[in-house]
Amino acid sequence: MRKIQLLALVFTLAISGFSQQNTKGFTLVIHGGAGTILKKNMTPEREKAYMAALDSALLTGYKILEAGGSALDAVQATVMVMENSPLFNAGKGAVFTNEGKNELDAAIMDGFTLKAGSVAGITTIKNPITAARAVMDKSEHVMMSGKGADLFAAQQGCEVVDPSYFYTEDRFRGLQRAKERDANKVDSSNAGLRNPLHRDEKYGTVGAVAVDKQGRLAAATSTGGMTNKKWGRIGDAPIIGSGTYANQQVAISCTGWGEYFIRLVMAKSIADRMEFGKQSLKDAAHQLVMVDLPKLGGDGGLVAVDKNGNISMPFCTEGMYRGFIRSNGQKEILIYK
Amino acid sequence: MRKIQLLALVFTLAISGFSQQNTKGFTLVIHGGAGTILKKNMTPEREKAYMAALDSALLTGYKILEAGGSALDAVQATVMVMENSPLFNAGKGAVFTNEGKNELDAAIMDGFTLKAGSVAGITTIKNPITAARAVMDKSEHVMMSGKGADLFAAQQGCEVVDPSYFYTEDRFRGLQRAKERDANKVDSSNAGLRNPLHRDEKYGTVGAVAVDKQGRLAAATSTGGMTNKKWGRIGDAPIIGSGTYANQQVAISCTGWGEYFIRLVMAKSIADRMEFGKQSLKDAAHQLVMVDLPKLGGDGGLVAVDKNGNISMPFCTEGMYRGFIRSNGQKEILIYK
Repeated sequence: MRKIQLLALVFTLAISGFSQQNTKGFTLVIHGGAGTILKKNMTPEREKAYMAALDSALLTGYKILEAGGSALDAVQATVMVMENSPLFNAGKGAVFTNEGKNELDAAIMDGFTLKAGSVAGITTIKNPITAARAVMDKSEHVMMSGKGADLFAAQQGCEVVDPSYFYTEDRFRGLQRAKERDANKVDSSNAGLRNPLHRDEKYGTVGAVAVDKQGRLAAATSTGGMTNKKWGRIGDAPIIGSGTYANQQVAISCTGWGEYFIRLVMAKSIADRMEFGKQSLKDAAHQLVMVDLPKLGGDGGLVAVDKNGNISMPFCTEGMYRGFIRSNGQKEILIYK
Repeated sequence: MRKIQLLALVFTLAISGFSQQNTKGFTLVIHGGAGTILKKNMTPEREKAYMAALDSALLTGYKILEAGGSALDAVQATVMVMENSPLFNAGKGAVFTNEGKNELDAAIMDGFTLKAGSVAGITTIKNPITAARAVMDKSEHVMMSGKGADLFAAQQGCEVVDPSYFYTEDRFRGLQRAKERDANKVDSSNAGLRNPLHRDEKYGTVGAVAVDKQGRLAAATSTGGMTNKKWGRIGDAPIIGSGTYANQQVAISCTGWGEYFIRLVMAKSIADRMEFGKQSLKDAAHQLVMVDLPKLGGDGGLVAVDKNGNISMPFCTEGMYRGFIRSNGQKEILIYK
């Protein structure tokens, strides 16, 4: 075993040296959820608030990357800004479960080491992405769930809040509307979710991906899951390979109808098309999000960045809150198609 | 949306027709866990019991496939036989959590439709693989967890048992030994798990993969997780793409140190090397299990079958309970290297 560890060390140093020789600019890409986001349904004030929140998230990550910080630290801090905003379905703005609770999922992955951490169904940690990071850094595990995950994160010093912290009137009304719709369903099938406008109220995610000055990649995703969720449903966000994935080529964070992202193992499929199919990030992401996903019956989008700073932000919905910033200061924030 | 559904239907019928034209023999492959299984530590009686249990599992699936049943039904029934045996860490033989409970994980995937179902941390369903199947067939979700998953499975008619059903003296003693070892740990690191003999007592899984007469593939995996697990830990077995995956090319079920299988997105990596890298099942599985997995520091094995009936059963441990049966009656059951 010691020989393997030594070999791993030599291997790590070799790669580390390689990366440092190739020091380049950095790039950060974020999303705040995809769905039927139409200009006609948006007030100027609300649009302004979203733009400001996305801008604040980008600048937070930018400062870390500019100072030579890691992609891993940058995506975590960036996601925390969006978790702290009531505008997005993550952290403070999380949607409600059928029981009127907020159960939060998050995942983070370091592409450089392939280390990952993930939590599902936590209820008392202010920033779920910090819980995912604690699982990655301070445990022998990759994924924890429920009360146990809350307890572990609290023990590791993550900020604990009363579950009432996650209450927002807007999301609570969303739960009431979802329950009314479900009560009016004529059958027990998936009909409610087949209406994209209803589905948008149910889903939502925030995420960030980055490549830092040393060429290291990382991805982070956080969500409140779906409105009115029951049965301890787990979506794609905390599933490594589906909603969140990073390796030494690419980092990806997804948002959308989670079940379809899991069935496609969305993020890993894109990474593998690039690695083994020699496809560009753009082509691989387009195939999965614009072809395979709707063909299966799902929808949503994702943000991705590769080691060369190439960006992809495809979505097959009406809109996706998204943006990017580069080391040269180039910045863009978008909502609609 | 209707146009897409119609296209999907035409597509499905086209593929279905293709598969039927190519009717061939069928193949079923199973595992009952990988680890430091040494002949010198095994009594003849115990070895005989394992061989008989594996044989019974294989014959159960064989009958279904021989009668023209689906790969999906075959892998489920095969896994149920192993879940009902106290010899394997799944169902009746599940290991204990730190709190002295049995929390069970399982997943099933239909490669033909890419439908999947998964449960994590259930405690009252006799056969967790039936709960995973219920999630797949009877819900809009892919993954459910905890009490909610138990409740859903019970509502769908899965057999409910008192949690005491899962008590076995052998596994309970295993928990005591694990606790003693953890109490004696000199640091808070992963040292205990670095000893493969200790790890073997902690991990274990059962799984089955099959290709049926119509060329359809399916995979199923079930486990009690790891002895003395805390914090709602979720391993790779219920993670679609990591411990369990099937598409129209290959079906894979894994067993081993779950955290490493998640970080490698093990099963999907193999499937994608085949699809996009044009590698054979044998080469792809060898690379992941014999090279990438130990390089990262993990161990374990898997069973896989492709659409042409090619089999792979690699493992980088001392042994793995495993076997296969083909439509021509060829059958093999193995334990050691």
